[in-house]
Amino acid sequence: MVRSFEIKVPCSSANIGPGYDVLGIGLSMYLTIDCTIDSANIDSISYNNNCIIEYTKDSEGYESVPLEADKNLITKTALYVLRCNNIRSFPTGTKLTINNPIPLGRGLGSSGAAVVAGVMLGSEVGQLDFDKQRMLDFCLMIERHPDNISAAMMGGFVGSFLRDLSPAEVERREIPLSEVFSDLSSGGEDTGLSPPLPPQDIGRHLKYQWNEKIKCVAIIPNFEVSTADSRGVLPKAYTTNDVVFNLQRLSILTTALTLDPPNPDLIYPAMQDRLHQPYRKTLIPGLPQILQSVTPKTHKGLLGICLSGAGPTILALATENFDDIAAEIINEFKKKNIECDWKLLTLADDGATIIRK
Amino acid sequence: MVRSFEIKVPCSSANIGPGYDVLGIGLSMYLTIDCTIDSANIDSISYNNNCIIEYTKDSEGYESVPLEADKNLITKTALYVLRCNNIRSFPTGTKLTINNPIPLGRGLGSSGAAVVAGVMLGSEVGQLDFDKQRMLDFCLMIERHPDNISAAMMGGFVGSFLRDLSPAEVERREIPLSEVFSDLSSGGEDTGLSPPLPPQDIGRHLKYQWNEKIKCVAIIPNFEVSTADSRGVLPKAYTTNDVVFNLQRLSILTTALTLDPPNPDLIYPAMQDRLHQPYRKTLIPGLPQILQSVTPKTHKGLLGICLSGAGPTILALATENFDDIAAEIINEFKKKNIECDWKLLTLADDGATIIRK
Repeated sequence: MVRSFEIKVPCSSANIGPGYDVLGIGLSMYLTIDCTIDSANIDSISYNNNCIIEYTKDSEGYESVPLEADKNLITKTALYVLRCNNIRSFPTGTKLTINNPIPLGRGLGSSGAAVVAGVMLGSEVGQLDFDKQRMLDFCLMIERHPDNISAAMMGGFVGSFLRDLSPAEVERREIPLSEVFSDLSSGGEDTGLSPPLPPQDIGRHLKYQWNEKIKCVAIIPNFEVSTADSRGVLPKAYTTNDVVFNLQRLSILTTALTLDPPNPDLIYPAMQDRLHQPYRKTLIPGLPQILQSVTPKTHKGLLGICLSGAGPTILALATENFDDIAAEIINEFKKKNIECDWKLLTLADDGATIIRK
Repeated sequence: MVRSFEIKVPCSSANIGPGYDVLGIGLSMYLTIDCTIDSANIDSISYNNNCIIEYTKDSEGYESVPLEADKNLITKTALYVLRCNNIRSFPTGTKLTINNPIPLGRGLGSSGAAVVAGVMLGSEVGQLDFDKQRMLDFCLMIERHPDNISAAMMGGFVGSFLRDLSPAEVERREIPLSEVFSDLSSGGEDTGLSPPLPPQDIGRHLKYQWNEKIKCVAIIPNFEVSTADSRGVLPKAYTTNDVVFNLQRLSILTTALTLDPPNPDLIYPAMQDRLHQPYRKTLIPGLPQILQSVTPKTHKGLLGICLSGAGPTILALATENFDDIAAEIINEFKKKNIECDWKLLTLADDGATIIRK
């Protein structure tokens, strides 16, 4: 028997200015996995956990991405889901062809997309039939930041929060994959232990009605910022003034992006942030200049500008004039000897999808 | 010539859980001012700044509220607006009859309503013809917290933020009324100096589409909490965890209250707060018990519960079962020997209004 299906997960932009660890937008650049399970293909038995992994040559990180199922983030995540459900490995004859156009470590949710894709893959190969809300629980056990995860899974423009867990549930808080796979990384032996199932409804989310006139210009510099670095530069505490500054802007932004026509007088100031962007300028040369020099006054059609996730990608929301806006930002980076790519992206409203063939 | 008009300003509830210094709701209990200006009434000349002030006997604070125009918060605010515009006092023959049902110092925006009413009064008696956006600037020069002010002026369910002012504008930041009136409080002499006009557009606001099925149950304990005390107990800095906790909930709440049907699974957790309510329990006996014991599980129809402003009033949002919800909260206060009044309030969607007769 042969089963095959395709999983498609959008990239995402998190934070969107004041919405630190809160807001996310699923965007039209997709990680795809073509999966075929042919039980007659006994070649797979010689592969790690029965899973043959291939990347298309144009994939980001093609040269360096691990092809062993217990090392690759997507399949490691799928194995976590399977083992929580007492399934030890992929079915015999699993073959994955992965295409990943999402640049790594640039603030476009490449690892969030991998986690979402992995959970969906695990649910599908194990025929576990989880709905998206339940799949989100598995994702959040691996990465307890809901912004990119919710946007990639649910699609569109979303806000999310982590529910207060009960003491019994908190015992089973975040499970680092390294812990789940200690048995594997120390030689690949399967101890037969199953991780506990995640609590139900760890995260809740809400999808806002994004105004479709608003497009996203993503300017992607050619260097990576690690999540560890980008969190490391942030302070441990914030003043009331800075907190209220962000709360006030966040309260406006989620609704302002739904209104028609989009109002730059409301959106531009509502995309200002004092909790993460000011601290990340040390990691991203030219950032303060870029956030200040590109405004609705200098660039017609511009609505707002912010760091995408932890950067270095810059996200500009605009209704027109996309090339000029991108050119200005690329030019600012060039002054710091940084080359950029850029893309015009639209909302990926469906989020992660699976097509059974 | 005789002119007369009525000003009507709603009470308001601020914060609404996570929206500390951000969210406000204008509610259906109104401060009213009946104003008659009869230039033939030369009796008024013997009154402070030409203004005869009367309160209806059922007004809150009837016994203690100052009746001199340069001491009463409403008329002092009106005089500030007039003097900014080079008008020294009220017109000859100004007589005000004020009815104030808004309890003082209970977290229902009594001083916000007074400031809004005062600015509107100043604009009207001075025939200055300011629109509400401009009137908001004058209000924010007196009280630079936009939550109650915006809700009382604009009405409905609003979020607001303070614009980043330019250095030139910042020079003229908040002007305490005591400073504006130093000339008066030291003997009532008018120095003839005019305060500077406020910067334009100090605050911006956005009105959300409140679901009309949601009513507000206000339980009003019989003691006051001063703004100074209620701010004094708050910490100077917050951890990232607590900040993100509030940001995540605020992002959900503003939209969740617009959806139909109202969803308690979304609204109740989205009304949790870690920035002010936990610290105010020392000022409001029984608060933690109340916030925990009244839930959608124990009380059908309940959507969420929070402190109204800085308290001590408790605000419960609900679609039905109002008496039971109020009774439970009143009972919790009774255990601490605190008596309460309660009111079922609806949205005051028009905000402050003026009717010329």
